[in-house]
Amino acid sequence: VSLAQVTIVGTGLIGASVGLAAAAKGRSVNGWDPDPEALALAERRGAVTPAGSLESALAEAELVVVAAPVSALPSQVASVLARTGERATVTDVGSTKAGVVAAAAGVGRFVGGHPMAGSEARGAENASAGLFEGATWFLTPTADTDAARHRQVHGFVAELGAFPVAIDPAAHDRLVALISHLPHVLANLIVNRAGAGRIAGHDPLASAGGSLRDMTRIAGANPRMWTDLLLDNAEAVAMELADLRGRIAEVESALGRRDHEFLAGFIAEAARNRRRMLEQSFTDAGALHRVSVHVPDRPGVFAEITRALGAERINIEDFGLEHISPERGGTVTLLVAGSDQARRAAELLTGQGYRVVAAAVLDED
Amino acid sequence: VSLAQVTIVGTGLIGASVGLAAAAKGRSVNGWDPDPEALALAERRGAVTPAGSLESALAEAELVVVAAPVSALPSQVASVLARTGERATVTDVGSTKAGVVAAAAGVGRFVGGHPMAGSEARGAENASAGLFEGATWFLTPTADTDAARHRQVHGFVAELGAFPVAIDPAAHDRLVALISHLPHVLANLIVNRAGAGRIAGHDPLASAGGSLRDMTRIAGANPRMWTDLLLDNAEAVAMELADLRGRIAEVESALGRRDHEFLAGFIAEAARNRRRMLEQSFTDAGALHRVSVHVPDRPGVFAEITRALGAERINIEDFGLEHISPERGGTVTLLVAGSDQARRAAELLTGQGYRVVAAAVLDED
Repeated sequence: VSLAQVTIVGTGLIGASVGLAAAAKGRSVNGWDPDPEALALAERRGAVTPAGSLESALAEAELVVVAAPVSALPSQVASVLARTGERATVTDVGSTKAGVVAAAAGVGRFVGGHPMAGSEARGAENASAGLFEGATWFLTPTADTDAARHRQVHGFVAELGAFPVAIDPAAHDRLVALISHLPHVLANLIVNRAGAGRIAGHDPLASAGGSLRDMTRIAGANPRMWTDLLLDNAEAVAMELADLRGRIAEVESALGRRDHEFLAGFIAEAARNRRRMLEQSFTDAGALHRVSVHVPDRPGVFAEITRALGAERINIEDFGLEHISPERGGTVTLLVAGSDQARRAAELLTGQGYRVVAAAVLDED
Repeated sequence: VSLAQVTIVGTGLIGASVGLAAAAKGRSVNGWDPDPEALALAERRGAVTPAGSLESALAEAELVVVAAPVSALPSQVASVLARTGERATVTDVGSTKAGVVAAAAGVGRFVGGHPMAGSEARGAENASAGLFEGATWFLTPTADTDAARHRQVHGFVAELGAFPVAIDPAAHDRLVALISHLPHVLANLIVNRAGAGRIAGHDPLASAGGSLRDMTRIAGANPRMWTDLLLDNAEAVAMELADLRGRIAEVESALGRRDHEFLAGFIAEAARNRRRMLEQSFTDAGALHRVSVHVPDRPGVFAEITRALGAERINIEDFGLEHISPERGGTVTLLVAGSDQARRAAELLTGQGYRVVAAAVLDED
């Protein structure tokens, strides 16, 4: 990809991370931000060479990455396209795409983009050249987009370590409504339900077990950013919510008529879908075993467990801790491949005095 | 607690684990199961001394723990109460309580119980003396329950490592409908929605990011057991589902009228509730920082990270891996206390060639 001169417009977390990653690949990176402090911070991080104005930032640009907040993105992209000529390919990093693609109004040198990374932190101070490694980076070329520009941006984001995936802009917004915005709305709703009041004196939040915790991990994140994201994709999100309401009503009816067959079928379908999802991540999802280890709340306990398993050449596919409380300790969950490794891990850790429970992950009976 | 002779009726995962834990405390443990294989397995695990019949199992019992499947529990408890006299205190481990308490029909020596542990595995082969360590164990004494029997069972489950919590049976069922059954239903619904079809050729399951994965971790588990659990608590679960439908409809309306204030308020409320939930587990939740590390898919990488942090005396409060795929690697997430430890962890791991992003967990702006 012959993009020697990259310009970042908007040097927050994502913009500055693109700058760091592009600079690490030897590109010359200019940056501009309407907020002088944000720009100075990105400069101090080595993410961009700051420009005195948007115009001067764009003067030599071959690739412009617009990384403004979602609500400012359509006007910012239109403005950048108006101030640049054929020399510059323009892309963005917004998490919804219909609005910004419409704002580009069919200009062939615009390619919409959306890296699936980084929503949990903010600002150039948290920027990282590695933010996009392994992440999906959606690109939304349309019939108007120059194929060569699409290839350029594809190559650029692949170079940053991301996996580019081309998708229609409206389909992109429906897809993220389902895989990202719906889970966020639900996490917020459930934690608010659990926090709404006591049940016979018991605080549901204090009684929360692993399932409620898993489900609400993303609740309450970045209220300002998420409000804008949801509003920006309001129609697609509302459609997903309406669809879910319909599905919930079906389960309610099934419970009302004590419909064993419906419920069993619905959970079995979920088991098949979860298997399909795990198969994206693991070569042999069916062989996965979960080994749960109760651990005290003390330093070094993870290192001890991972070292013991490593010494026995037991490969940990996945690893998690549910911290219950300082008094109660927590549960470390390991995924390993195959019942043999699970048995060896359980024996090893039991021998070291830990309390261990092991079972197949995909137990679909 | 003077309960020398314990009898386990139903020697599956929970029953056999109670047996192992009680035996470890020096108690004599008899067991009986209608399935001779299940009983033989529990004997081989050293969980129980098998009895030839339910009658002989109960003959000397001072404490009977009924650990039958949820659907068989009320009749099994009634049967045990009918076959025992004043000598025997009777408890159970069912995950709903109204039905079984009703079946005990006001007998003062029955104390309903529900350990919040172990739903992911089955059978005595997965039993563990440590299954209940750190877990909440609900007890549901009523006005009819002998206070001394309640104290006995309280002491017994505390001895197994659990934290006994007394609650009214109906309130218990409403509470678990919210904190356990609702999350399960939703996890199943969402994974089924994501698995229902492609969006413009893209499989939502294959595009799933961390939020969808977090939310569906418990989907598809034990279809047979979960069908019974949901049916057994059908009314309370249906009420929670109806409540959630109402909350979803409110968000839909807010999206429809582009109500920025409603959405911002709703997410900010979730942030406060999530903080309250984290405060149950961590002494200073506000100081928690998340350090995310991109890691390749290779053996030993966890041991490397935990060892490096341990050597620098950085205490890991929580630890998780999101395994993306063999090609893309994954993301290790560490929680540490305080921005100083977060910065040191990030510097240390960056110095070892890892790509790191750090940020406060509770970022409520």
